[in-house]
Amino acid sequence: MPTISQRGKACPPSPIRKLVPFSDEAKKRGIKVYHLNIGQPDIPTPENVMEKIRNCDLKVVEYSHSAGILSYRKKLVEYYKTVGVEVTPEEMIVTTGGSEGILFAMISCMDPGDEIIIPEPFYANYNGFAVSAGVTVKPIESFIDNGFALPPISAFEEAITPKTKAIMICNPNNPTGYLYSRKELELLRDIVQKHNLYLFSDEVYREFVYDGAEHFSVMNLSGIDQNVVLLDSISKRYSACGVRIGVMISRNKEVMSTAMKFAQARLSPPTFGQIAGEEAVNTPNSYIKGVIEEYLERRNVVVTAINQMQGCFCPNPGGAFYAVARLPIDDSDRFCQWLLEEFSYEGQTVMLAPATGFYATKGRGTNEVRISYVLKTSDLKSAMKCLEEGLKVYPGRK
Amino acid sequence: MPTISQRGKACPPSPIRKLVPFSDEAKKRGIKVYHLNIGQPDIPTPENVMEKIRNCDLKVVEYSHSAGILSYRKKLVEYYKTVGVEVTPEEMIVTTGGSEGILFAMISCMDPGDEIIIPEPFYANYNGFAVSAGVTVKPIESFIDNGFALPPISAFEEAITPKTKAIMICNPNNPTGYLYSRKELELLRDIVQKHNLYLFSDEVYREFVYDGAEHFSVMNLSGIDQNVVLLDSISKRYSACGVRIGVMISRNKEVMSTAMKFAQARLSPPTFGQIAGEEAVNTPNSYIKGVIEEYLERRNVVVTAINQMQGCFCPNPGGAFYAVARLPIDDSDRFCQWLLEEFSYEGQTVMLAPATGFYATKGRGTNEVRISYVLKTSDLKSAMKCLEEGLKVYPGRK
Repeated sequence: MPTISQRGKACPPSPIRKLVPFSDEAKKRGIKVYHLNIGQPDIPTPENVMEKIRNCDLKVVEYSHSAGILSYRKKLVEYYKTVGVEVTPEEMIVTTGGSEGILFAMISCMDPGDEIIIPEPFYANYNGFAVSAGVTVKPIESFIDNGFALPPISAFEEAITPKTKAIMICNPNNPTGYLYSRKELELLRDIVQKHNLYLFSDEVYREFVYDGAEHFSVMNLSGIDQNVVLLDSISKRYSACGVRIGVMISRNKEVMSTAMKFAQARLSPPTFGQIAGEEAVNTPNSYIKGVIEEYLERRNVVVTAINQMQGCFCPNPGGAFYAVARLPIDDSDRFCQWLLEEFSYEGQTVMLAPATGFYATKGRGTNEVRISYVLKTSDLKSAMKCLEEGLKVYPGRK
Repeated sequence: MPTISQRGKACPPSPIRKLVPFSDEAKKRGIKVYHLNIGQPDIPTPENVMEKIRNCDLKVVEYSHSAGILSYRKKLVEYYKTVGVEVTPEEMIVTTGGSEGILFAMISCMDPGDEIIIPEPFYANYNGFAVSAGVTVKPIESFIDNGFALPPISAFEEAITPKTKAIMICNPNNPTGYLYSRKELELLRDIVQKHNLYLFSDEVYREFVYDGAEHFSVMNLSGIDQNVVLLDSISKRYSACGVRIGVMISRNKEVMSTAMKFAQARLSPPTFGQIAGEEAVNTPNSYIKGVIEEYLERRNVVVTAINQMQGCFCPNPGGAFYAVARLPIDDSDRFCQWLLEEFSYEGQTVMLAPATGFYATKGRGTNEVRISYVLKTSDLKSAMKCLEEGLKVYPGRK
């Protein structure tokens, strides 16, 4: 039998999926499982978007332009205007989900062996793309005690080597929910400029900011137009994860023309998804407003509940729909599995994502879990009750 | 400004797209352009498929299973039975087009620096995926004079080095239309077995075989179950290129579990496309039969016309909807550009793909073009007339 690739062996399994077999088992045993492990919102996709798909009168579902349907890119220009970002259709490549944009950015800007600095914990799937691209992730630590704020610039300086080509952030952050301030981003700008690095910014949760805070996009950092690559997706904004539509944006023409070669190789992003995406920009503001109010309430339920549990701590996230909590446990992988395999409270349990999978540094995140508050508040309350009761009887409690 | 990647520089532009600006210019000058450069069929997507999309009653367009919706994979099991291939849902990962499957196969089985042998001319976009994956393509020559039959096994033997991990074929072939016989595939099987290599087979044109020939799938080669990876797509079969739905199939569990990690990183293939794909399997046989009859007629129009032109030769392809023709010209890139930029016949011209882009060996294909016979016969006849008249007056005629 021929051997599989070294990179295939090196690719870590998805931390949010590896416990799925245990969750399936729990369901088979008749236990209700609250899924707080994955960022799949329960919010309906906007009705106008679904209606658009139902009225689709295409005769031939053709390849689109490799950079995406021009009318969709023009529509995206309108959308970005509403969030204060000026871009042109030529500065965009519509991608198959945000995922493909991350891969395109990495392979267009980086070669095998090059290094990318990412504050940890970070979105675990960055690992898969880095491994695919042969790129090395250099994590630098952020800490739960200050809510996972941007690590000090000295930590970036220490991590930079001659092989460093890029810094990557996710803002608001998955998994921590932390919203980077304009000031933090300007510090990043300075170091990017000083060392002539790329700055990749994943801003798919842009709309999900709370407590009156404002999201500041890296596209509006002055002086680093040629360094910035924005990665975006409509999955979360319009609760349309399955359409697989994202976009890669940069004002660096060479980056875009290089990415375009890879985009042409894969022909085009999904046509139905682009039709959905173009219509999604017409979604009334009341939709997003309602969604944000809903998430704010959910966040408050989760954060309040956890901070009332003995020995637990959950910083109050400024954005996204995730929180990382510290629990009095020996091992988050063991604990999350135990919740599914051995525990139930009134016939119910909760599925969480062990935070270990979001850290590249071995040994970190062992007493932390990521919670996606993607269920309605009544379910979240029940899920939090399960967590509280579980912690009381978990054999590995510390 | 930070530098772009070496691999980005190394990635060749798509040969079927690089002349698009000239075609746009021709249209601006009021010249009708027959597009025989790209494999975008004009055949309508089956009505049942479009109807299914129009009846979509999803409330939330969710991520699907990373390997694809289970009911779709089960439906694919039925489809493969009808073409004599026995597979299970666990041996499949639904991919975003055939394209993603090629990338998954390469990164799961090969590391940067590893070599893959591909008979040339080959589908040009394999280059983009190989460059993304850091894999080196080792071309071996096939020749127009025998219709681009499989190169002799000695040529494979000579190309194999310690770095060789895989052989890749496309059957029926894009760009040549050549249909590999069972006997040729058995020769490939022997060498794959002898050197313990992977055999990647792109069979997206499986249904498009003519003159009573039968397609033989690598899945039915005995003794190399652990070596074979099948790559497929519904784009051509159901004229649904824009849905971006393909599938990667292998009986090698380690390959599939490795590919699954990369599949999980990108979350899921497009949901609407999978809904379309599941329904597509129900498409009545009469649809495919009608499509094949249509392509057969088109092939005959093109091949007959070219072989009647002085100094031209076009082998009669056994499958797909492409043909490579040898023309009495100095340089196919120059000729194809000239057709768009300087030539017209009765206000019309034709866009062809220079064959140079389908060869990895520099200097090959300079007197060959690829013709996609994706237009109705009346248009094909006009396009062939343009080609004939163009050749008469082309300044670089030989």
